[in-house]
Amino acid sequence: MYTLLIGNKNYSSWSLRPWLALSVGGVPFKEEKLTLFTPEFAARLAPLTPAGTVPVLLDGDFAVWDSLAICEYVAERHPQARLWPADPRARARARSLTAQMHSGFGALRNVLPMNIEALLPGIDITPAAQQDISRVQAIWQDTRAEYGQGGPFLFGAFSIADAFFAPVVSRFITYGVTAAAGPVREYMDAILSLPAMQAWIRDAKAEGIFLPPDEPYRTQR
Amino acid sequence: MYTLLIGNKNYSSWSLRPWLALSVGGVPFKEEKLTLFTPEFAARLAPLTPAGTVPVLLDGDFAVWDSLAICEYVAERHPQARLWPADPRARARARSLTAQMHSGFGALRNVLPMNIEALLPGIDITPAAQQDISRVQAIWQDTRAEYGQGGPFLFGAFSIADAFFAPVVSRFITYGVTAAAGPVREYMDAILSLPAMQAWIRDAKAEGIFLPPDEPYRTQR
Repeated sequence: MYTLLIGNKNYSSWSLRPWLALSVGGVPFKEEKLTLFTPEFAARLAPLTPAGTVPVLLDGDFAVWDSLAICEYVAERHPQARLWPADPRARARARSLTAQMHSGFGALRNVLPMNIEALLPGIDITPAAQQDISRVQAIWQDTRAEYGQGGPFLFGAFSIADAFFAPVVSRFITYGVTAAAGPVREYMDAILSLPAMQAWIRDAKAEGIFLPPDEPYRTQR
Repeated sequence: MYTLLIGNKNYSSWSLRPWLALSVGGVPFKEEKLTLFTPEFAARLAPLTPAGTVPVLLDGDFAVWDSLAICEYVAERHPQARLWPADPRARARARSLTAQMHSGFGALRNVLPMNIEALLPGIDITPAAQQDISRVQAIWQDTRAEYGQGGPFLFGAFSIADAFFAPVVSRFITYGVTAAAGPVREYMDAILSLPAMQAWIRDAKAEGIFLPPDEPYRTQR
C-alpha cells in the first residue's frame, strides 16, 4: 500500500493533484497529512526528498516526489487506472497541458493561492493574473472541443491533466472567477462533482488552520 | 522528421533540454530557431501553443509544447533512444529530479540565467540562489553515488534528467560556481564533453545577440 504525504488540504494545491489522481483512478493509498511551515513538516521530509516539499509518495521505503513524477509513476504501475488518455496524441496533449500547469501560470498561483474554505470574490486581480485566467479558460474550452468527446473532462474520461487543473477550479470558486453557464462552467462543475474532490473539500473546510504565508491578502480569518 | 522550435541558444535553457535529449538519443530532427522577444517569435508560436513559449516540437502539423512533455513524447515514441533509465525505480527517481528542475530552483533561475557566451564569476549570488546551488550539487553527488554506475551521468547512461540539468552546468561555468576536482566537477565535465553540448555552445557563442531581459546584471555587452 502506498502512503501519500500531503500538506494542509485547504492550501496545498500541489498535494491535491496526485491525491485526486490516485483517488479517481482507484489506486489504494494511505494519506499522511503534515501541517505546512512546521518543524515537524521539515523533519519528516528531510530524509525523503531534497526538495523538502509535499507531495511525496512512499512505495514501501522508496520515495517519489513532485506532483507530476508521482502521477507518472502511478500511471506507469497501474495502467488499469487509465490516468493518461489511451490515444498517443491525446496523451501528448494532456502532458503538454499538465506540464504547462506544472511550471507556468505564476501570476495565477501567486495572486490567487488555493484557499478552499475562503470566499473572496472582491480581491484585486492583477492584469498578469487575469491573463493567466483567460488562458486557462481558453485551454479548457479548446481542449474539451477537440478531445472531450465521451465524458465531461478535458479528454473525455478523467486524466492527470484534470488532476492538475482541479486546484485552479477551486481557486476560481474562491475568487469568484466564474460564469453562470457555458463550457467553462460545465467543466468546473464536472471537477467539483467528483466524489473525491468533494471529500477533499469537506476535509479542507474542517481543518480550521490559518496560515499567513498562504494568505497574501489578509492577516486574520 | 520532427521540427524543434527553439529560442536563442545563448539564453534559452528550456530549448536546450529537448534539443540535447533528441540529439544525444539519436532522434533526427530539424531545428528552427526563433529570436526571443520579437514579433516574429510570438506570431510563429501563437497558432501552435497557448503557452506562447519555446520549445515546441512539431510532428507533422501536431504540436507538442513544454520541454518535459516533448521529452516524454519522444521517449515514448523512440524507446531505442533509452531516454529514461530502464529500471522502474531509477526511472521514477529520474522523473522526480527532472520535475523538480522543471518547476523549482526559482532563485537559481532568476539570479543566474543561462548566458553561455558570458563569463561573470564576480556577480552577487543571493542566499536563496546559493541554497539552490548547494541543493543541485548535493543532488548530482547523491544521485551519481546511488544510481551512477556504468557511466558518467546521473543514472550512468545519459537520460532526460541530464538534459534538464545541462543548462545548470552551463550557468555554473558562466558564474564561476565550480570546483577544481571531485564528483560535482566530474559530472559537469561529462555534460560539457557531450559532442551535442559542444555544438550547442559553439552555436550560442556565434549568435552575438544581446537581450537585456535575460541580462539582469548588466545593460550592455
